Order: sequence, then C-alpha cells, then structure tokens
Amino acid sequence: MYLKNAWYIAAWGHEVGTAPFARTLLDEPVVLYRDGDGRAAALADRCCHRGLPLSLGRVVDGALECGYHGLTFAADGRCIRVPGQRQIPPDAAVRSYPVVERHRWIWLWPGDPALADPGLVPDCFWNDRPGWRMYGEHHRVACHYQALIDIQLDNTHAPYVHPATIGSSALTSTPPRIERAPRSLSATRWMMNVEPPPTFAKAGGFTGNVDRWLLWTYLPPALGIFDIGVAEAGSGAERGDRSKGITMRTAHFATPETATTCHYFWSFARNYRLDDAAISERLDADMSRTFGEDVTMVEAQQRSLARSGDGGRIDVAADSPTLQARALLARLIEEEAAGAGRRAVA
Amino acid sequence: MYLKNAWYIAAWGHEVGTAPFARTLLDEPVVLYRDGDGRAAALADRCCHRGLPLSLGRVVDGALECGYHGLTFAADGRCIRVPGQRQIPPDAAVRSYPVVERHRWIWLWPGDPALADPGLVPDCFWNDRPGWRMYGEHHRVACHYQALIDIQLDNTHAPYVHPATIGSSALTSTPPRIERAPRSLSATRWMMNVEPPPTFAKAGGFTGNVDRWLLWTYLPPALGIFDIGVAEAGSGAERGDRSKGITMRTAHFATPETATTCHYFWSFARNYRLDDAAISERLDADMSRTFGEDVTMVEAQQRSLARSGDGGRIDVAADSPTLQARALLARLIEEEAAGAGRRAVA
Amino acid sequence: MYLKNAWYIAAWGHEVGTAPFARTLLDEPVVLYRDGDGRAAALADRCCHRGLPLSLGRVVDGALECGYHGLTFAADGRCIRVPGQRQIPPDAAVRSYPVVERHRWIWLWPGDPALADPGLVPDCFWNDRPGWRMYGEHHRVACHYQALIDIQLDNTHAPYVHPATIGSSALTSTPPRIERAPRSLSATRWMMNVEPPPTFAKAGGFTGNVDRWLLWTYLPPALGIFDIGVAEAGSGAERGDRSKGITMRTAHFATPETATTCHYFWSFARNYRLDDAAISERLDADMSRTFGEDVTMVEAQQRSLARSGDGGRIDVAADSPTLQARALLARLIEEEAAGAGRRAVA
Repeated sequence: MYLKNAWYIAAWGHEVGTAPFARTLLDEPVVLYRDGDGRAAALADRCCHRGLPLSLGRVVDGALECGYHGLTFAADGRCIRVPGQRQIPPDAAVRSYPVVERHRWIWLWPGDPALADPGLVPDCFWNDRPGWRMYGEHHRVACHYQALIDIQLDNTHAPYVHPATIGSSALTSTPPRIERAPRSLSATRWMMNVEPPPTFAKAGGFTGNVDRWLLWTYLPPALGIFDIGVAEAGSGAERGDRSKGITMRTAHFATPETATTCHYFWSFARNYRLDDAAISERLDADMSRTFGEDVTMVEAQQRSLARSGDGGRIDVAADSPTLQARALLARLIEEEAAGAGRRAVA
Repeated sequence: MYLKNAWYIAAWGHEVGTAPFARTLLDEPVVLYRDGDGRAAALADRCCHRGLPLSLGRVVDGALECGYHGLTFAADGRCIRVPGQRQIPPDAAVRSYPVVERHRWIWLWPGDPALADPGLVPDCFWNDRPGWRMYGEHHRVACHYQALIDIQLDNTHAPYVHPATIGSSALTSTPPRIERAPRSLSATRWMMNVEPPPTFAKAGGFTGNVDRWLLWTYLPPALGIFDIGVAEAGSGAERGDRSKGITMRTAHFATPETATTCHYFWSFARNYRLDDAAISERLDADMSRTFGEDVTMVEAQQRSLARSGDGGRIDVAADSPTLQARALLARLIEEEAAGAGRRAVA
Repeated sequence: MYLKNAWYIAAWGHEVGTAPFARTLLDEPVVLYRDGDGRAAALADRCCHRGLPLSLGRVVDGALECGYHGLTFAADGRCIRVPGQRQIPPDAAVRSYPVVERHRWIWLWPGDPALADPGLVPDCFWNDRPGWRMYGEHHRVACHYQALIDIQLDNTHAPYVHPATIGSSALTSTPPRIERAPRSLSATRWMMNVEPPPTFAKAGGFTGNVDRWLLWTYLPPALGIFDIGVAEAGSGAERGDRSKGITMRTAHFATPETATTCHYFWSFARNYRLDDAAISERLDADMSRTFGEDVTMVEAQQRSLARSGDGGRIDVAADSPTLQARALLARLIEEEAAGAGRRAVA
C-alpha cells in the first residue's frame, strides 16, 4: 500500500532532542531521539516487554530506557539491560529504522534497511544553504497523503482556494508542459505578461505586469519541489535572465501517518533581500495562510469522500498532472511488491 | 428504510441565504442556497469532480461554484462551467432535489422528483398567517427520528418530563380517542374541570380549574400538529365555544439526518394578545424548556438502546397511539417499496 | 470472560445517596440508590418499557421511578406501578443485583444471586476501624482491569514510575517470596538495611537506613491488599517487632467497566500519629501522585497494545508474580464456566 523502500520525512530536526519524541509514520508508532553525540535514532515505539511506548521513557547514556521497568535499548534496537537480571533474553529487541538528517529534516526509511542509501535523500538545498532564508511548518492533516500531493501538483485550484495570496486566473488558462522520467515527473508553466498575484506583487515590489514561472518536480513517494518566481514582463526570465525578478523555492512532503491522516512538512525559501524583515514577515504569513487553505480543502474533501465514497466522479483536463503523478507512484509500488515477490520466490 | 416520496423539512427559511448552507438529510449531504431571485435550491453537497462539499463554494450569478476548482452548477444540478476548458463533460452533474418554501420552512423531497407535488406540503398556517405569533427552534438530536415522533404523540410522559411547564396527571388518567385514516392518525383528549398546568395557568391568567384539550394529528412521515388550549371549566369549549379560553398550535417535525440522529424543527403559535411581550417571553421560554426536556429524554433513551439493544421491552396501555403511528408509517414505507418493486418489474 | 460469582466494588458508600447513581460494571449499566432506610440497592439501569436509564428517574417512597413514564420498581426489580393502568404486566421487571455495604465500599455480585454470600466480602478493616486513618480515591481508567492488577502486584516498576515517592532500586534487586493458595496468592519481600524511599523517610522521620517490608495478597478477581512499612534498620521488624517502625495498609481494586476500561478504587491507611495533619497531607498527596502515575502507565500501555496488538512480547524474571496471578484468575474463570456447563447439562 505504501512505497516502503524510500526516504520519508519523519520530523524537523529541531523537533527531536534528547527527550524521546513519538510520531506515527506509515501506520507504525515510532520514537525518535538523539544519543549523546546528537545523532538521531528511530525505534519502534513499543517496548518488547509489556508494550509501553518507549517514548514515555528517557535517554540514559545514549540509549533508550523504558519508563515502566527500565529495559534499555541501543540505537540498533537490541535490548542491552533488564533490571533485576543478568541475562538478556535473546529475543529482547525492538525494530530500528535507518535515519538520515539532512536539510533540517530527519528522513526515515521504513523499508529494507539494506537498501537505505543516504544518497537517495532528495536535494532540498534551500532549506539550509547560506544565501537562502527558509521558513517551514509541520501539520498533522486528516487526509490520505496522496490528496495532499494532488493539491500541490494541481495548480489550477489556486485562483479558487488562494485568491488573497498566490492565486490568479493565469494558472487556469496556462496548461503546464509535463515531462515524464522513470522516477519523477516535472511540469513547466510560464505565464507571460500577466498581473502578479497579491503576494508576489508585494514581495517583489512589482507595479506592472510580470512574467511568472511555476516549475515543479514530483519525486515519489511524496515530495513536490517548486521553483517559482516573477520578473518584469519582457525581461527575459523565460530565457534564463532572472536579474529583474525574484526566485523562491518551496518543498512539500506528505508522510503517511495512517490510511486517513498524514504529516505535512513544507518549507518556503528565497534568495534575495534576506535581511528585509518586512518581506520575511509578509511571505511567512502569506505562505502559512496559503498552505493552511490547502489543508482546509483536503480535509473537507476527505470527510466528503469518507461519507459518500470515492466513486461517481469525473476528471477534467487540468487533472492530467496529478493523474500522471498517481500513475507513477502506483507503478513504483507495484514494482516494489513484484520485486519483493521475486525475492520471496528466490 | 425511509419514506422517500414525501416532503421533509430541510431548514427554516431564515437559515438559508446566498451563502451555501450544508445539512445532512436522510443520510445524504445536501447543500441549500438561494439564487439571485431568492429562490431556494438544493443540490447534493459533493462536487462530481474531486468530491469537495459544494457548501464550501459560493453562489455566482445564481449558480453554485465549487470552492476547489471552480466547477459551477445550476439549480437543476447540471454543470455549466469547467474553468480552463470549453467542453463540459456530459456526465458532469450533481443530484438536484425538489424544494418548496412554505410556512417559513424549506421542504425537500428526497424521492422521485416526478412525484414532488407542492400541494402535498402539510398546512402549518399558524407559522406565518396574520393574527398568529409564532416562535420556533431547530435542534440536531442524537436519536432515531421515530423516537422524537414517539415522545410528541405519547402525552403521558408530560407529568414526569415536564412537571414545571405543561405536565399534569390529568394527561395520564385521560386516554385519548384515536381516529385512523389511510395516511394520518388523530387523537382527541379532553380533560374536564382539572387544575391547569403551570405554563397555561400563567399564559391564560386562570386561577381556578379549567377544561383542557389536546388534539393532535400525525402526518407521516414525521409531522405532529397540535391544537391545544384551556378554557374556564364548564365554559363549553368542548362544544366549540373557546371564547373563555386560549388556543395554541404547535408543530413538531423530525427529519432523519442519519440512522441515529435527526433534525428537530418545532414551532409554537398563539392567536391572542399577540402584543403582550410578557406572555410571549413566558411561553417562548417555557416551550423551549419543555421541548428541550424531550430532547434530553430521547437522547438518553437512544444511548441506552444503543448500548443494551432494543429487545426485552414491554408495552403498556398508554403506548397505543405511538404504536399505531409506527404501524402507519411502516405500512406506507412497505407500500412505497412494493410500488418501486412493481415499477422495477414493469 | 469475567469471574461472575464474586464481589466487585461498585462504588464508595459516599458516592451513593437517594439520587440514583449510574455506573457501568462488567459491561452492564447499573443504577445504585438508597431506599428510605439508607439501604443500598442496585438495578439494571434500563427501564423495561422504553429503555430509558432509570438513573434519570428518582426515588419515591424507597422505590425507583422512571423519569419517562413513571413506571416504578422495587429493590428486587419488580415493577410495582404503571401510571394510567391498574394491572402490572407480569413481565414488567428489571434485573436486581445483590449488594453489600462494607468497609466504606458498596460491593456488587454480578453472578448467581443464590451464591451471593456476604461472608465472602474481603476484609479491608483499615478502611473503617477506629485507630486507623484512611484516604481513598476512585478513577475511571482506560485499560483492561487486569493491567491495573498487574501494575499493583509487579513492584519492580516502582523505581521507574515512582522515583519521587515510593520507588527505590531495592525493589528490583529483592525478588519476593511467593505463596500460592487455591484462591489467593501472597508475596513477601523484605529489604534489609536500605535507604528509605522519599515518602517513607518523611512519613516516619527516618534519617538513616531502614528495614522495609512489602507484603501483599492477591484475592481474585481484582483485589490487592498490601501491608507495607519501614522500621529502623536492625530493629527486628522482620521478626515481628514493629515498635521502631511505621505500618501502612493499602487496598487496590479494579472493577471491569468494559473490555477496555475499569473502575479503580484504592485506599491507603495508617495506624500511627492519626492527628498529625502534616503527615496526613503528605501521605495523601504522595499516594494520590503515585497511584495516578500507575494510571498514566496502564493507559499508555493499553493504547499501545490496542494499536499494535498483544503479540510479540517477552517476559522477564520479575514478571513471575503477575503471571501467577493471571493464571490463578484464569483457572477460576475456567472452573466457573465448567461449573455452569455442568449445571446446564444436569
């Protein structure tokens, strides 16, 4: 049901400290913590003795001690102490998950640990590279994670859902050019000589028309990264000259929590006038509002589909990108299941 | 399970404006709104595209625009606009319900639209006829709608549930005379030379005993209308002379929301001393309390039956009216199902 | 599933007065009340007429009147009045439960009334005997009742769950001596020349090391009674001389409410310096905190097992007492079921 051999964002780095931190990911209770060296670790959040969540315990000498009877676990999941007895039962262990901390996020690999290549963590450099200023949030959203991916990749909702910030009818009237790759999907949308939407007019100080771009890449299972911006109309941004414009990057990740809920991590960054507090405040507030409006939509959609079922719906022309993204993810999940089947046979 | 070819109260007229208004009726999510001419309309509250409740959208030029991608629907349910494309997919439509606005209520027909005869809307003239003053409420009640009908038609509960307002032991000691008709049930109960209950003593200024009447008609599926009043004892009210008494009318409707919840609409009206604010205030407060006490009862009953099941119960003599009302509704539902079956065969 | 022929605590005596009091016990809704003589009675909390909880009614002349239509029930469950009719239907009755009030608790027998011997009520004399001062609480706890028994009998959790009050590592390093009887289980644990835990150091004014005892008896289905105390190290308490120590008694009962919730009744008593308000305040507060910490644990455990299942867990050496207690109760439930089977065959 989920793509298992993939990196999922488990938490913002700042969410996890030496106090154990509980989060359900892909239907599994997980506890995250940092050892004495500040290295993040992730274990199943359920003691193998009496089932207590290990997140109610504490970190002692870099290992995780259960809060009920003191059984203690190393980062690899092995039990290393049972108070009151010398021998550790050989099956005393909990599951350990590979984790990597990068770009201010802690990424977790829910599949086969042998395949957990840190090189596969997607590049979200704008989150922590000098010269960029980033703002981000985490939300627990009451929807299937794919609905949250849909609303990011389907930009024609913006005029209806975000009229006060980034929406404009140019998004609806300009279909994107889609490029398919074996493990990604990209879209290019240039809107030439159009009115800037409210947020970007203010953020860039534009008074006249602009050329506007919206370039995104979907990286399965659940990441959308966006290169967005506006420049003076006719200044050649579409040919590569962004000197008379402003560039922003935004990343959106939907980690499944359960079949009907997910964790939404988003970041929004810019590389100009980093010290202008008024622009920062304005953009932070506008993005917080915009992506909060998305959450309101997908949660209402989820309630509606839960009540009335998923059937009897139609597609329109603008659904093409999200349908292609869903097809890509479905193919990868199918291939993974087939591969696991082959391994099981072999 | 429900009688489908019937008018159900969907809302008070004042509840519905140009902003879409969501309400679940007979297990179906419905959106109510008024078009440019103030005419009420009702559609399925689920866009045929991505399932968003249409109640999150807005009325534009008298049509209902979805708040997600802007698909727009006419009052007959047809989609008349898909932003970003010229062709409307032929199956782009949502269900439309016949509605009639009468006696301050908006009535909705959940069954076959071809049978939706506005002439079948029950007469509740006291809600809006000059010479009458009406007060009413809407409650969402956590009980099966028939339990709410039961408590209205079964008046022997009043001494126990409403001792402070309209209850008196005369109701228990005076069985009603019941008249059955093919599509209605009526009860006549005259209590002669009895103490007036607290509310009516105050509302009519009675200091001595009264003759009291309680005449009701049950109109399936879910309406009880009551002609109630008190007159000086021996003044001949039972022979038609109400000159030394006061008359009130009250209507109670229970529209199913789900199998375990319903919408309770009630109104209470009088035709005397309309400008006496003290009487209005007293009656409004007493009726609000009285029918609120009913709600408390039926919700407690529902929780009890949900927990312990419906079996193992006995009937008593006073249950006769409600048992007959239930039998009438059951017969009509059965006939409707049989008729639908015949049509399906033919 | 439950041991039925046994006394369960239904309520503290002070919880039940002439106003009907509702409580769910062993999955059954029960109403408790006192008749005109102050004698406690317990009936099924569901009128046999329309299913209303009788707890919404009132006590009239020592009998329980339903709040919906006034049907009235005696303490043995028989209906003794139906307003509006003379004849009482012969099957008009609700279930009545044997109850006994003793040691400030009202005990209820959910099984065969013919077997309800008041002599089987366990002795908790410290709750009401002169010379003892008792403090107690009731909690509704979201866990299976056996989890609450487990945490009482398994004392090795104390250093981890109660470090601020009664926990100390001596509990983990000193295994108890267990004695088995056909219908009970006892444990003896002496910790010699150890540091007193914080609560007992203060309660007894100990500055040096102590000899500490923890003697408990488990009486199925759900009672743990504890004789606990500390004395000056070497003063001979283990040989019976408690003159240089302090003795306390505590009782813990877990009455099932549903399969996933229970009622937790506990009392804590001492027989020294009864008028020392500072000691009372300190002990009451520390015990309230301590047993509240237990509740936090077992509720977290319950949520975890509900989510991830009961399987895949290991036992450790310290689990021996709780495993034996569970085996004892399982045997008694099995014997009771077998006995009922034999009676059914005979």
